[in-house]
Amino acid sequence: MTHNLAEKTPVTMLGLGAMGTALTRSWLAAGHPLTVWNRTPARAAALAPEGAQIADTAAEAVAANRLIVLCLMDDTSVGEVLDDTDLADRDLVNLTTSTPAEARARAEWARARGARYLDGGIMAVPPMIGVPESGGYVLYSGSRDLFERYQETLSIPAGTTYVGEDAGFASLHDVALLSAMYGMFAGAAHAFALIRREDIDPAALAPMLADWLVAMAPAVHRTAEQLRSGDYTKDVVSNLAMQVAGTRTFLSTAEQQGVSPELLSPYFELMRRRLAEGSGEEDLTGVIELLVN
Amino acid sequence: MTHNLAEKTPVTMLGLGAMGTALTRSWLAAGHPLTVWNRTPARAAALAPEGAQIADTAAEAVAANRLIVLCLMDDTSVGEVLDDTDLADRDLVNLTTSTPAEARARAEWARARGARYLDGGIMAVPPMIGVPESGGYVLYSGSRDLFERYQETLSIPAGTTYVGEDAGFASLHDVALLSAMYGMFAGAAHAFALIRREDIDPAALAPMLADWLVAMAPAVHRTAEQLRSGDYTKDVVSNLAMQVAGTRTFLSTAEQQGVSPELLSPYFELMRRRLAEGSGEEDLTGVIELLVN
Repeated sequence: MTHNLAEKTPVTMLGLGAMGTALTRSWLAAGHPLTVWNRTPARAAALAPEGAQIADTAAEAVAANRLIVLCLMDDTSVGEVLDDTDLADRDLVNLTTSTPAEARARAEWARARGARYLDGGIMAVPPMIGVPESGGYVLYSGSRDLFERYQETLSIPAGTTYVGEDAGFASLHDVALLSAMYGMFAGAAHAFALIRREDIDPAALAPMLADWLVAMAPAVHRTAEQLRSGDYTKDVVSNLAMQVAGTRTFLSTAEQQGVSPELLSPYFELMRRRLAEGSGEEDLTGVIELLVN
Repeated sequence: MTHNLAEKTPVTMLGLGAMGTALTRSWLAAGHPLTVWNRTPARAAALAPEGAQIADTAAEAVAANRLIVLCLMDDTSVGEVLDDTDLADRDLVNLTTSTPAEARARAEWARARGARYLDGGIMAVPPMIGVPESGGYVLYSGSRDLFERYQETLSIPAGTTYVGEDAGFASLHDVALLSAMYGMFAGAAHAFALIRREDIDPAALAPMLADWLVAMAPAVHRTAEQLRSGDYTKDVVSNLAMQVAGTRTFLSTAEQQGVSPELLSPYFELMRRRLAEGSGEEDLTGVIELLVN
């Protein structure tokens, strides 16, 4: 396969951890000219045989191209790495993990230095990069112009989803999705713990568990509609009073199986608090209000 | 549609809450002769026009048929309702929500009274009963003979999955799957709470959330394989050390958004404890060991 290099947007990549390296490789494979820099030079040198230009300093890498992609350790590293660089007229795409507040502050910081700014939150692990069928994608927010200008290039490593002009929204969505995933993993950990002392093969439970979670995940659509309308009694399948009554079985079973209830009890406690407010006919949605100060 | 009543197994149904009523209707619709009893007679009377025989007492209902299906409030109710009935040579299928220990004790109790016993855990809500495409099913454990003898009849309201001779296994699997679901719902509640004060439509987040949870649910297969082998470092995509480092972003974001971390922090705390044991190269699987006493 031959590539017309003239048509491919040149990219400067700062940060070559596992994710930065995977991103770089996907652009190299698609024929993009790449200039790379990493604090530890060995990781950059490893990409030279694949066609990457190695920059000796971050400043040199930033000077090389207009499009600068950042994938560093954290937001503090972004400030440090870019400190001695000239960002005038640069287009920054920051894929470094950060909080919404950090992303918003970084967008202001970039603007003050004459750069345009797009923030990204990567919904993928490195092996999913450059593998379209993996389902991995990157959430973007900030400059819509920047997103549209580079969308084709940004689509090479993973799918792209733009979530708004607010630079903090990509990381907010990212954190929201990953937080929900940790909740699911916590629930699955409790499930596996329950069968730990029994003669039950975890690999026999796993398919039931995966299927059940997949079947129940769409409940979030009903939650969203209830949050929108403010009516948590609409389309309720099993009301809060019934569900709180059922928690006894879950907690007793955990106790019988010698399993700490610590991963489930905070949610059950919120359910009880909401019920105590007289919300027995509601869905579980009201619990969300108790979480927000 | 005509039914040959002679071919359909007659069923006695004890307990006509929302679930018991849905089960009864699915059997009536499939042409099974039904004898029903409920503590509150009105709920039984409502099924007479659909062809159900109404029994005045539980004893009369139990005497009417060999197959007795129970769907009562809780295990205590099962004992109370069956107390004055003659269970000799009866086949009990107990779909009442119970803990594994309650189910095991109830199986012994039934055996001592000359009955055979199959326990069930319903993985469905009433609207899913009698709707094959809903994906609802019932977990069964206990007498394999009983399961096989009545499998055709039991398949009318919902799919059937047999999980072992131990009468407690149906409820153990049921509780495990529902516990995992509550974990997922807790995670989703945290996610919706994070965007609560922002100009973000919950119905725009919901599809991303559902898709992400569905994409990540199969991770339970890797967990199961690691639990089987005892090697939690196999096929690790993102190791515990990296994931613990990432928790800072989740907790800071929650704080910035005014959201209590109470639904996430117990899992993060277990991750930190496991990391402190020197398991940084492992997957999250080791957390499960910390849950089991």
